[in-house]
Amino acid sequence: MNLLSRIFQYELPTQIVFGVNAIQELPQKVRKLAGSRVFVVSDPGVEQAGILKKVTDLLAESHITFETFTEVDREPDVKTIGIATGKAKEFAADLVIGVGGGSAQDAAKAVAVMINNEGKITQYAGLDKLPNPGVPIICIPTTAGTGSEVTIWTVISEKENNMKFGIGGKYLAPTLALCDPALTLSLPGPMTAATGIDALTHALESFVNKATQPVSEALSRESMRLIAKSLRKAVAQGDKLEARYDMLLASTIAAMAFNPTRLGLAHALCMPLGGKFKVPHGVANAILLPQVMEFNLVGNLEKFKEIAEIFGENTEGLPLRDAAELSVKAIRQLNRDIGIPAGLREYGVTEENLDYIAREGMTSGNVLVNPRKPTLEDLKEIVRRSI
Amino acid sequence: MNLLSRIFQYELPTQIVFGVNAIQELPQKVRKLAGSRVFVVSDPGVEQAGILKKVTDLLAESHITFETFTEVDREPDVKTIGIATGKAKEFAADLVIGVGGGSAQDAAKAVAVMINNEGKITQYAGLDKLPNPGVPIICIPTTAGTGSEVTIWTVISEKENNMKFGIGGKYLAPTLALCDPALTLSLPGPMTAATGIDALTHALESFVNKATQPVSEALSRESMRLIAKSLRKAVAQGDKLEARYDMLLASTIAAMAFNPTRLGLAHALCMPLGGKFKVPHGVANAILLPQVMEFNLVGNLEKFKEIAEIFGENTEGLPLRDAAELSVKAIRQLNRDIGIPAGLREYGVTEENLDYIAREGMTSGNVLVNPRKPTLEDLKEIVRRSI
Ligand SMILES: [Fe+2]
Ligand SMILES: [Fe+2]
Repeated sequence: MNLLSRIFQYELPTQIVFGVNAIQELPQKVRKLAGSRVFVVSDPGVEQAGILKKVTDLLAESHITFETFTEVDREPDVKTIGIATGKAKEFAADLVIGVGGGSAQDAAKAVAVMINNEGKITQYAGLDKLPNPGVPIICIPTTAGTGSEVTIWTVISEKENNMKFGIGGKYLAPTLALCDPALTLSLPGPMTAATGIDALTHALESFVNKATQPVSEALSRESMRLIAKSLRKAVAQGDKLEARYDMLLASTIAAMAFNPTRLGLAHALCMPLGGKFKVPHGVANAILLPQVMEFNLVGNLEKFKEIAEIFGENTEGLPLRDAAELSVKAIRQLNRDIGIPAGLREYGVTEENLDYIAREGMTSGNVLVNPRKPTLEDLKEIVRRSI
Repeated sequence: MNLLSRIFQYELPTQIVFGVNAIQELPQKVRKLAGSRVFVVSDPGVEQAGILKKVTDLLAESHITFETFTEVDREPDVKTIGIATGKAKEFAADLVIGVGGGSAQDAAKAVAVMINNEGKITQYAGLDKLPNPGVPIICIPTTAGTGSEVTIWTVISEKENNMKFGIGGKYLAPTLALCDPALTLSLPGPMTAATGIDALTHALESFVNKATQPVSEALSRESMRLIAKSLRKAVAQGDKLEARYDMLLASTIAAMAFNPTRLGLAHALCMPLGGKFKVPHGVANAILLPQVMEFNLVGNLEKFKEIAEIFGENTEGLPLRDAAELSVKAIRQLNRDIGIPAGLREYGVTEENLDYIAREGMTSGNVLVNPRKPTLEDLKEIVRRSI
């Protein structure tokens, strides 16, 4: 057992409050965190869906002073973060709330730390580079996938050079994740599908990678079990609260799992696909995942067999290799059932881009923990098969 | 799904560092917590086994100033806590380390908070009654069962009136749990068995009770899976590091599960059995558990079926009630295999004591979350069958 040779660490810097109508606890939580001037970061979609108003009404009813910033781009840009941070400082914000999907939450987290740190956030790319803690952060997810509400990571773009950066560390962990499945009821099917596979990719890549550890494994299993049970229904019948509950839970739990382990090749390759080709994060993961699994299979046959079983495949009597292979079949079928685009060509990715994507992907820290060490050619082949 | 009607909260105030030789990280962790005068609480057994010396040698080698206190009783008494706290204050301790089983760790936690709180600790019995936080706490478990290294509880006795009290709250959560399975290698078989069933009772009672929640359920499952796999071997072949690893992990993970959910009737009845009859905590749990399961079964058949399956029972084709019943059979067999005493009579418990034990048990907060509401007569019957 290789676990005997390794010391692992687990911690959860975020308090999680989860449940239908959990949002009602916002005012008391703001008070408990001594928030008196609250800066609310969201995006235009969340505002138009009426979700932002639910949040700000709760603040207003409790006479909590707040200011909103909703100009968050789909992939938050370093300039946007600079502008928002300026406004938050001017407002003298002592607490930041992020309401939305991964982008709005990541922007909120970035603003909260940059209130107390100099320069621009991308200069702190990597792990634990920020010198000062920020103000308390409350994250309220409106999609089920990113898990940003409990992660120590924020992903920020530099649009002028098509780059995306991960900035991580304990200062970026939200103080509180306020998870209310009812807020995800209005999410359209394609977004539900893409974000749902993002959550699955978090649980799965953490589960099979070299840095996983027992606490993360237990959480990954639970997350995959919930996704196997409820993702199809959440896409097919978006108004089913039970399916929404399971998916938001799966997303939050997956993030609790991958926080200390990082991910794998799908997330490594997502960065250039998002940065240069604007492939939405969840879609890129969904398209890449079966190819990445096929490549990684030999690195951990037992785990891939277990994934197959979680997704309902019958592995009884099969040789281990064949049982493991069924996991890929199961995820391909899931992708088809929930309408994931067939390939990256829809986003303008061609054979000519393989070298760029593979080279950028290779720079990701997620490559180091992947269960099989890839060459540049391996990464190219994974992307080639995903076109 | 009743989960839809309830908001749950999950947080983990303790950082966990786990692994063979994890103890080597102690000096750097003490420094990180700004510990300069360290008060080490342990017990005579741990000292005689040479484990305390391993800890203090590490401190000495790193020139960290420390003082040890090893006069902890098996069930720490409020007077002992008072004496130890006096010594810690005199020493001007700024960090407390607990090295041992539940008793030494609970004593350490009590001392750490009482350095900054007035009076005697039993006056703060219950949840979140302590007004002030204590100094940072590092817990180093040497048994696999109590989970005290990550719980928000400490159990303290008042020997003069045969009472045991639970004092809980975030100030009682260790700052760091340093879990090194190698330290449990010398634990004798009977202690391994009793503490192992204590861990199982934590995982199981949390799993089936009314306050459980998805994060706890996932952790309980993992804990029970590890115990099913490795408790027999840890008792039969105590030098097998892999079995010790699994059991310490099971114990720590079970405590992560029950922290926010509390437990059930076995733990309710343990208190008077420990307080008045000196039945060791794990032994009391082990003897009571099958009877408590039998009583609780109808409160959650599905969960008991799952427990049966985790413990290797074949439930295929069985009616749900019969499948659930197999869980009781599995735990009875486990108890026999690891040499748990057959009943409480060995400890002097007789029919005449039933009323006292049941009445005391009924006052426990664990009764409120039990999956089936008991009458006083029910509690008496559970204990009667356990004699
Ligand atoms: Fe992701
Ligand atoms: Fe216990």
